[in-house]
Amino acid sequence: MPTSVPLKPEMEIERNEMTSRTLTSDNTSSPVSLLGLIEGELQKVEARLIAETRSDVGAVRDISGHTLLSGGKRLRPALAILCARTAAAQRTSFVYPEDRVIAAAAAAEMIHMATLMHDDVVDEAPERRGRPTASAVYGNSITILTGDYLLAKSISLLAHNDENLHVVRVFSDVTVTMAEGEVLQDVIAHNLDIPLETYEEVIERKTARFLAGCCETGAMLGGADAAEAAALRAYGHHLGNAFQIADDLLDFLGNPKKTGKSLGTDLRDGRVTLPLIHALAQADSETRESLRVRLAPPGGAMTDADIAAITATIQRLGGFEAAQKVAEERTERAIKELRRFPASPHRDALERLARFVVARDR
Amino acid sequence: MPTSVPLKPEMEIERNEMTSRTLTSDNTSSPVSLLGLIEGELQKVEARLIAETRSDVGAVRDISGHTLLSGGKRLRPALAILCARTAAAQRTSFVYPEDRVIAAAAAAEMIHMATLMHDDVVDEAPERRGRPTASAVYGNSITILTGDYLLAKSISLLAHNDENLHVVRVFSDVTVTMAEGEVLQDVIAHNLDIPLETYEEVIERKTARFLAGCCETGAMLGGADAAEAAALRAYGHHLGNAFQIADDLLDFLGNPKKTGKSLGTDLRDGRVTLPLIHALAQADSETRESLRVRLAPPGGAMTDADIAAITATIQRLGGFEAAQKVAEERTERAIKELRRFPASPHRDALERLARFVVARDR
Repeated sequence: MPTSVPLKPEMEIERNEMTSRTLTSDNTSSPVSLLGLIEGELQKVEARLIAETRSDVGAVRDISGHTLLSGGKRLRPALAILCARTAAAQRTSFVYPEDRVIAAAAAAEMIHMATLMHDDVVDEAPERRGRPTASAVYGNSITILTGDYLLAKSISLLAHNDENLHVVRVFSDVTVTMAEGEVLQDVIAHNLDIPLETYEEVIERKTARFLAGCCETGAMLGGADAAEAAALRAYGHHLGNAFQIADDLLDFLGNPKKTGKSLGTDLRDGRVTLPLIHALAQADSETRESLRVRLAPPGGAMTDADIAAITATIQRLGGFEAAQKVAEERTERAIKELRRFPASPHRDALERLARFVVARDR
Repeated sequence: MPTSVPLKPEMEIERNEMTSRTLTSDNTSSPVSLLGLIEGELQKVEARLIAETRSDVGAVRDISGHTLLSGGKRLRPALAILCARTAAAQRTSFVYPEDRVIAAAAAAEMIHMATLMHDDVVDEAPERRGRPTASAVYGNSITILTGDYLLAKSISLLAHNDENLHVVRVFSDVTVTMAEGEVLQDVIAHNLDIPLETYEEVIERKTARFLAGCCETGAMLGGADAAEAAALRAYGHHLGNAFQIADDLLDFLGNPKKTGKSLGTDLRDGRVTLPLIHALAQADSETRESLRVRLAPPGGAMTDADIAAITATIQRLGGFEAAQKVAEERTERAIKELRRFPASPHRDALERLARFVVARDR
């Protein structure tokens, strides 16, 4: 008889009543209609996430639930489902494997949740999306271990729900790559001299390949042929790069009420992202030196004034404009990959999703 | 072009020259002959571990290498190989899938290494087996992320090396269970009132099922039929329980030079294990109270004198004897499962391994 040690029994109630803030809900800046098309499927993903993380160890259930409830946009599940539907729309007399798509979508979100939990421990983040992080509430130890649980559970879910190994390969490989990207990001933190290629390598590994993997998996399950799967994979890849660059811009320019994190959070963690790299490349030696001091103040912690000054300098040197342009170019490349598919509600949603990702007011 | 950021380039040399302290080497207390039988195969596991963790992110490679070099006994790979060979010895005209067995053995060790790395972060352990832990050398952040890398890599290795999903299922399921066991252990830390069943649940999840999974996987790859696979799984399960109880005894009675960790390390982490549970059940109320004070000294940290006094009390109350008896019973149950197999060098090695695990001077 397994021992259940619930930390906070009331979480169970919350979990059951959970209405997640997906991209379909109207409390985000996204148009309600953006993913309304797949709202029913996204709700099945939610139900699956809850069912799969109902561990008989109470604390595991509670911490998983805490992270599930933290208001994720469910971008990865949405990509998997939309790509599956886009591919399937090409096929006649194809039996759409909804359950396998939902399982893959849920597994993708579990991997994402696990990496967020470990990131929050690594970054000592008190909040995410305006809610306390799991590590802040439950402590680092249990959060690390529950992250491991979710990583393993995602693979277990896939291995028990699929008859071929391909999906397991794709998801385990992207997880390997993501961990490498996170390590690389950690190693180069606070280094203002990193070349553009290293930044590109980090976002490629920590974001782009994962989104590409979600799209490829969806496509495969939707019956795509090799060329179609490659196109949707490429869509996800470009979208992932655009998404991460846009996310990096929000660290300087976002509305904390919408993003749920304070301005300059990445900057304080020593993350040198595209706007800053562009600005540093444009700066004269005096400006570079003043940026350097602001970024590693002799007193220790960066102040809000430091962040405001760095932001103003990047603005003046065109760093935000340049980064936004790169993100938009990536979006256009993503959308181009969709052209091989005839217009369909799901294909169009992928296009709108790509444009939404780089919208300045998201 | 991936960016490589080696933290310590000299690690690479060490890795290449690595001679691990497996159960075959003579610098452990085990008989040299114990696993000499499969020394060649264990060397292939070592080579595979090095090859698979040769990440192009330098830090990932170095930290994986650091943990690889920390002198593990390779118990899990040995179990997988010995069970595969024991099962295969039953078959005529069976083509032994050595490469798949080596891959599964390496994957098992990678999962084990990943959990050790995360454990060391959770326990803030400065040393393991007499060497500084990865977290002590490289810091918690990169160690957590490299643990994730190893977890994902183990699944990726299996998914790319095997044509059926069963091995992935077994290993992802045991990893789920292990994480749950670790969380449970963390939740009940410092609680002297935990029932025996909860202790059993923890060691079942964190150790026994993993060893059972290694044996079952080996058996399956060795061509075992369902009954044979179940017997070897049961062997691993009983062995795992015996092994963990023996390990818990070593925290009180081991030779730190052999175990590589100070006496009372688990005790300081608040782990209430079988000898103490037995002692608490036997103690009168005064002794219980004095144990309570020693275990949570008003000053904060437990001293060596506290540990010596607790050890003496457990000794007096027969806690070690009782725990040793349980471990030996488990060993006998493990060995009993081997009876269905005719005598063979590999079967005999499994039997010796079971006896070695509970030997007091290991």
